[in-house]
Amino acid sequence: MAQRTLRLGANLNGVGNSISFWRHPDVPVNASVDIEFYKQQARKAEEGKFDLLFIADGLYINEKSNPHFLNRFEPLTLLTALAGATSHIGLVATLSTSYSEPFTVARQFASLDHISGGRAGWNVVTSPLEGSALNFGKGEHPHHALRYEIAEEHLEVVKGLWDSWEDDAFVRDKASGVFFDPAKLHTLGHKGKHFDVQGPLNIARSKQGYPVIFQAGSSESGKDLAAKSADAVYSGHETFEEARQFYQDVKARAVAFGRNADDILIFPGIGPIVGRTEAEAESKYREIAELVDIQQALNYLGRYFEHFDFAQFPLDEPFPDLGDFGDNSFRSTTERIKREAKEQGLTLRQVALRASTPRSNFIGTPERVADQIQQWFEGGAADGFNVRTVVPNGLADFVDLVVPILQERGLFRKAYEHETLRGNLGLAVPENRYSGKVSV
Amino acid sequence: MAQRTLRLGANLNGVGNSISFWRHPDVPVNASVDIEFYKQQARKAEEGKFDLLFIADGLYINEKSNPHFLNRFEPLTLLTALAGATSHIGLVATLSTSYSEPFTVARQFASLDHISGGRAGWNVVTSPLEGSALNFGKGEHPHHALRYEIAEEHLEVVKGLWDSWEDDAFVRDKASGVFFDPAKLHTLGHKGKHFDVQGPLNIARSKQGYPVIFQAGSSESGKDLAAKSADAVYSGHETFEEARQFYQDVKARAVAFGRNADDILIFPGIGPIVGRTEAEAESKYREIAELVDIQQALNYLGRYFEHFDFAQFPLDEPFPDLGDFGDNSFRSTTERIKREAKEQGLTLRQVALRASTPRSNFIGTPERVADQIQQWFEGGAADGFNVRTVVPNGLADFVDLVVPILQERGLFRKAYEHETLRGNLGLAVPENRYSGKVSV
Repeated sequence: MAQRTLRLGANLNGVGNSISFWRHPDVPVNASVDIEFYKQQARKAEEGKFDLLFIADGLYINEKSNPHFLNRFEPLTLLTALAGATSHIGLVATLSTSYSEPFTVARQFASLDHISGGRAGWNVVTSPLEGSALNFGKGEHPHHALRYEIAEEHLEVVKGLWDSWEDDAFVRDKASGVFFDPAKLHTLGHKGKHFDVQGPLNIARSKQGYPVIFQAGSSESGKDLAAKSADAVYSGHETFEEARQFYQDVKARAVAFGRNADDILIFPGIGPIVGRTEAEAESKYREIAELVDIQQALNYLGRYFEHFDFAQFPLDEPFPDLGDFGDNSFRSTTERIKREAKEQGLTLRQVALRASTPRSNFIGTPERVADQIQQWFEGGAADGFNVRTVVPNGLADFVDLVVPILQERGLFRKAYEHETLRGNLGLAVPENRYSGKVSV
Repeated sequence: MAQRTLRLGANLNGVGNSISFWRHPDVPVNASVDIEFYKQQARKAEEGKFDLLFIADGLYINEKSNPHFLNRFEPLTLLTALAGATSHIGLVATLSTSYSEPFTVARQFASLDHISGGRAGWNVVTSPLEGSALNFGKGEHPHHALRYEIAEEHLEVVKGLWDSWEDDAFVRDKASGVFFDPAKLHTLGHKGKHFDVQGPLNIARSKQGYPVIFQAGSSESGKDLAAKSADAVYSGHETFEEARQFYQDVKARAVAFGRNADDILIFPGIGPIVGRTEAEAESKYREIAELVDIQQALNYLGRYFEHFDFAQFPLDEPFPDLGDFGDNSFRSTTERIKREAKEQGLTLRQVALRASTPRSNFIGTPERVADQIQQWFEGGAADGFNVRTVVPNGLADFVDLVVPILQERGLFRKAYEHETLRGNLGLAVPENRYSGKVSV
């Protein structure tokens, strides 16, 4: 059996990694809508033999939104553009099941999967932002449990559509005039609580079978959906112990659903800050943190709480008691914020600044950051990491300084082993439900 | 005033230009899902200084569908991939207003528009295929007039979302920390009969303002929608006289809506077959026509008539009287077929073969094809042409043999004049409804 190796994703998001990031002199201010910036980042990640690029998303803005959210590329089109600028790296786009049609989702991801030669992935989200409903004529944003119920059915429909064509359905015999074998074309005929979708889909599966399914929820419903249906999970825990608990929890749930623990990969998100010395790393953090404006930090914090107006409270008194408020949205984040504020006796100012410019634990010399990655990876807290840029040139620093150490230690690949994302992640090609055979 | 010059679009569709096309020895059988094939075609069209690439679409297939329709790329992702393989040519994707959300449509087209540097276009269609409703849980496909009513409101919402940000809204001043000017952010707040969409959109306008709006309906409602809202219209007439009548009709409607006749460009679709001699051109047509199977031709014909089963009728008797059947779908096509069958006394076999392998009037030597183009262009029947490939290497033949003649005659550009599609088509950048100023 092959040695277990680390997976790495690059979370690309223009000027978006903190509200003050764009103000740094070394950051291009229009990065969020500059395709050349993204191509350069994508190529750097591929130089570092990363498994994948990841693009987050949101469907609602107002004048208080983070600068990156106001004006940015749509993920599927962005990643399709990056497919042509890269050759091996995976392309994982966020797309909401609450505000999309399964037929269109199945089709656009399958199309990206063909265009990229089997490198597509879908980060299945349910849209935490309440305001999203206003942009899609829905009247009311579905509550948390309902969103996950919709998500589960949506994802099942999409997978069913992806199986419309068996892998050997297209005969394409010029002499006989037979283009396909009708016995290998399947009409889904889904009639469910939230979706009625007949099919078949008008595009075949790619060579990786399905795009790789990511999920990011950390609520109970979120963990269950991931454990049941996802190939990989993004998580966001500050400490090793929290990350380890989450990891063990999701793996146990997957096993309870009849899967192998290895069938689902856990990717904590990290924002490494690498310096040639500890002091250089700390200085890089301070340069970003000192650019934060407290009013913007309050707005940013409010976004997690249904755009709550925190400016009405005194800054230097204890974080206000909000009761159950904010439970229907970014539930796990708001619960953590409220819990930490209470346990650590934080003021509103401290909570807001901490939320807007999180200080990564993965900070220091390349060796120290590599040590932490190795500890989390070997200690049962991570199968890989979703690496975001929190200081200027953060991705390049990681690729140039940390990746070689991980490679040297035998933790990470020196060359891509496979052509597809699923192959590089060590995930099996899903069987077509109709053929009962593993596709090539 | 600059001399009026011809516009050219390349209608790229894999193996899809006739039902027998894929069987020709020189046609790559997997062209419809081969991104390298599309890139090669796109580069050839750009070598020929074409204004744009055009991708048609459909949202429903069954086992009788044309081979190309069964397994093909989704247009927006395909054109985004082609953006990276080209530098000047426009990218026009078909997308249905009957089965999409205006917020998502506005966003994906705006994203493609930024990615391509202002080269996006949207061919607004209402989805003629009845079965589409089955893939989108709609119960019933909206009837023709309702589809156009929905389309008009959808397009208005999308344009409104595109105006969310004035062109100078993003200040991005690092020193002051001001990222944007809130006075230049606008929330649409649309509440209509078919859509409620608040906005604002989370992406700015590109340098061409809006993606170029194409429309292709030729019914009364279709012509009115185009005349009112579109920058360009695709049409499909066999004869000069029909094309001229359509041209004059749409231009007159545009003027009645208070526009200039020059504000809307008419692009008849043509399938040129070019040979170094007349005999070579005729031979190229016969090679394709002789590959048609009559059963497949009947299926193909049936597709225009709500997948009607023509196999129940005798092949060599007069085309059956279908009464009003088929009026709710490809209305203008089915009306033309029924009218021609009656006027010319055609049998079912003749109608089916003619429908499945139309013999272009634009056939012959390069000079003859150029002559016809010039006649239509100068005679008030066309502002440009949407050129589809109907014989192997049809696009390359046109670029290599016909384009140089058109250039020599001063009818067509020898180099791109502008960076944007709107610029090359000679269309004005639309004013942002809020700024009242022409954007750059």
